[in-house]
Amino acid sequence: MLLLAGGNSSSPNSLSQEEERIFQYIDGHQDEFVQNLAGWVAVESDSIQPHLRAEVTRMVKIAAASLQDLGASVMLRDTGIQQLPSGQNISLPPVILAKLGEDPLKPTVCFYGHVDVMPAKIQDGWKTSPYNLTEIDGNLFGRGTTDDKGPVLAWINAVKTFKALNIEIPVNIKFLIEGMEEAGSIGLEELVEKEKEHFFSDVNYIVISDNIWLSTTKPALTYGTRGNACFSVQVECGEKDLHSGSVGGIVHEAMSDLIALLDSLVNSCGHILVPGIYDDVAPLTEEEKKQYELIEFDLKEYKASIGVKEIIYDTKEEIFSHLWCLPSLSIHGIEGAFYEPGIKTVIPSRVIGKFSIRQVPHMDLSKMECQVKRYLERIFSKRKSSNKLTVSMEMGAKPWVANINDPQYEAAKKAIQKVFNQDPDMIRDGATIPIARMFQDITKKSVMMFPIGAADDGEHSQKEKISRFPCTTNFISVF
Amino acid sequence: MLLLAGGNSSSPNSLSQEEERIFQYIDGHQDEFVQNLAGWVAVESDSIQPHLRAEVTRMVKIAAASLQDLGASVMLRDTGIQQLPSGQNISLPPVILAKLGEDPLKPTVCFYGHVDVMPAKIQDGWKTSPYNLTEIDGNLFGRGTTDDKGPVLAWINAVKTFKALNIEIPVNIKFLIEGMEEAGSIGLEELVEKEKEHFFSDVNYIVISDNIWLSTTKPALTYGTRGNACFSVQVECGEKDLHSGSVGGIVHEAMSDLIALLDSLVNSCGHILVPGIYDDVAPLTEEEKKQYELIEFDLKEYKASIGVKEIIYDTKEEIFSHLWCLPSLSIHGIEGAFYEPGIKTVIPSRVIGKFSIRQVPHMDLSKMECQVKRYLERIFSKRKSSNKLTVSMEMGAKPWVANINDPQYEAAKKAIQKVFNQDPDMIRDGATIPIARMFQDITKKSVMMFPIGAADDGEHSQKEKISRFPCTTNFISVF
Repeated sequence: MLLLAGGNSSSPNSLSQEEERIFQYIDGHQDEFVQNLAGWVAVESDSIQPHLRAEVTRMVKIAAASLQDLGASVMLRDTGIQQLPSGQNISLPPVILAKLGEDPLKPTVCFYGHVDVMPAKIQDGWKTSPYNLTEIDGNLFGRGTTDDKGPVLAWINAVKTFKALNIEIPVNIKFLIEGMEEAGSIGLEELVEKEKEHFFSDVNYIVISDNIWLSTTKPALTYGTRGNACFSVQVECGEKDLHSGSVGGIVHEAMSDLIALLDSLVNSCGHILVPGIYDDVAPLTEEEKKQYELIEFDLKEYKASIGVKEIIYDTKEEIFSHLWCLPSLSIHGIEGAFYEPGIKTVIPSRVIGKFSIRQVPHMDLSKMECQVKRYLERIFSKRKSSNKLTVSMEMGAKPWVANINDPQYEAAKKAIQKVFNQDPDMIRDGATIPIARMFQDITKKSVMMFPIGAADDGEHSQKEKISRFPCTTNFISVF
Repeated sequence: MLLLAGGNSSSPNSLSQEEERIFQYIDGHQDEFVQNLAGWVAVESDSIQPHLRAEVTRMVKIAAASLQDLGASVMLRDTGIQQLPSGQNISLPPVILAKLGEDPLKPTVCFYGHVDVMPAKIQDGWKTSPYNLTEIDGNLFGRGTTDDKGPVLAWINAVKTFKALNIEIPVNIKFLIEGMEEAGSIGLEELVEKEKEHFFSDVNYIVISDNIWLSTTKPALTYGTRGNACFSVQVECGEKDLHSGSVGGIVHEAMSDLIALLDSLVNSCGHILVPGIYDDVAPLTEEEKKQYELIEFDLKEYKASIGVKEIIYDTKEEIFSHLWCLPSLSIHGIEGAFYEPGIKTVIPSRVIGKFSIRQVPHMDLSKMECQVKRYLERIFSKRKSSNKLTVSMEMGAKPWVANINDPQYEAAKKAIQKVFNQDPDMIRDGATIPIARMFQDITKKSVMMFPIGAADDGEHSQKEKISRFPCTTNFISVF
């Protein structure tokens, strides 16, 4: 395998002649690549808003055509229909399954990416028109630039370079490109399940380029994500909202019960108080501790980037272990209570607290669900309230972790070394990316997350961008 | 003084000949009185929605004309302008100051009522057209029937009866009728302050008919209301909302701080945990305990009416003392957190908890404000959170209590005895009616709340009504 990049080819690191040609080609065609990206960004392929579904399908077909131009054999797979909350049914966009090369002597890498985007409107606070790629100081602003049209095009551009230069690609490549990622990859899991003995049968490695580095300048490889279990705690005190003057003082109020339940979950340092919840947490290994030391991390810059004055921990080891290797619990809000500005002296009759737990290996989702429910029921029974409690886990996604000694991680590290003249940060993601775990569970293949965007790329935000250089990676690919 | 009523004159209680004539007149003119009420209800005098302000003013002028027809001298007092949240200024409706009789040998009673109403739309769930008075089984449904057009007309009808029968009214009467009550009586306090040495100088008694009985069948006199202090507790953890996956576990989350602060306020039985808060609470007197025993109160019916299965206390003494003589604390909700159905794995950056304390005599508002702030600041400092806390009291209205041995209470009791053949319930209101305290504080006159509506009249609801009989009181007045 070999990692190829443009943008900082001014400092190549003992490149072969072939590699030199590849770098030169990429540098020479950078503006063309950016123009292609502009064309993709111009398609409002928002998978969240159903009225834009036709644009998503159009975008998938544009991507399919680009793959055909590379010489890949491309299938568009129908994944059925989506039922909207309104009850209306609409078609899902097709999923691209493509392959290029069938040499049984070469390993097969399957790249995953998506060409749908989150909603974006200029009135959301964009300083540039979100569907009109705008370059400012080497940053290419627009919806989808980093999440995930830019990374998909990076892979296509890399293959195009090999083809143009008539250089043999050292691997067989497959592409799985979808258009429903931002809406939860509806229909994808069923497709992967159906294809595990077919499309995936000869795949050795799955590479996902759909996340970002930890740094704004140093590349990273991501080998784990936390899971997520979303809970709702409902307390009911009556049939209708009450007036706090008329009955305040003589009824068990749903809000005070709920507040006590939520307050029982976590202490002021974020330690989860549910008994047994840490029992199955995998201990931090010496290898990981060493990796943490190598990660480029500026605490001051990090705090500024997330907009907080202080964080609870000072050292990299404490910070990364709490973000990646330990569960966390966040309380998101309350449904059914007063939430507007101003005053409303109401006793809400039915309130639903929302919290979630990011779980880590080797916590078991259903065991944790039981622990949480049993604990909250015990806390509630101690209050001797006449109200009605209902705790439910609304959603559960498992954590994922890969073996960083796997050949594709070794290869990717070497490639990044060649292009960037430094080792990548070996990182996990505190957030949940269910797709990595899903691919691993169903296909049993080695999965790697290979981020192409930088820490400040602002996915989902009103200033989404990808950069040309110095931290550019939009013209990088792995073979 | 003498209380006069129609509707249940079938069981008069040793009436004089004059009283008999009055009862007969009222019974004979009941349909005319209902027609008048229908005309008033038809005016959409909603003081909340600024675009209906002209209707409020029109309604005030209709009421003024009715008073002029009685022979009263009527002034319409301008109270200036209201600044809307949009910055727009609109005129306040005038306030009616009227007087009838100036006999220095008679006491002077000032009646307070209002002719504006809460908003009402058929699509809010009304089963009858809210501005079209609709009679069903003796109940007169419509916005304003009980709050407060019906009670205002009751007083006017009573005077009209005396006039028609050429019977001398034993008191001088003044009327203060406003059109901004539902919007917080904007401008009224300033007017009362200006008029305390003029309009109010010869007033002996102020009677407010703008609340309801505790029972659906037994009249009541109200001699106290709780105050209300509304607090907001703001915790900020950063400049922008954060992702619970990306940073969950390493930041002090504003929500967990806020939840802990709110949880520190009150225990599961509603006992307020702020130190010192009960210090100045007036103890329950033996006289009040005895009064409680006389109150008609069906616990099962009460629970059904408020829609709860259980209340914390069993006895009338416990219930009334907790509703009327002890402070209560209710948590209303949280601004800035996730409140919608579904899931959002957000760490909100700035959350504002809203709670209020209904205070009772002789709690001091500013002392309580200090106690609450100091307590919450202490709880917060123990958490060693790096977040920013701001506690503020957004609104404070004082409690009010009258001396039930005051002559006007004695007179009202006797009158109710005469008409209903039973003593009224002597009640307080757990809710806050700042106007009683305001009149008392500024004018230093005796204030009585003389409810005319029954417990099931549904003020502010989609089934607001007033009844003809058996619990009718819309043709009652006190002189």
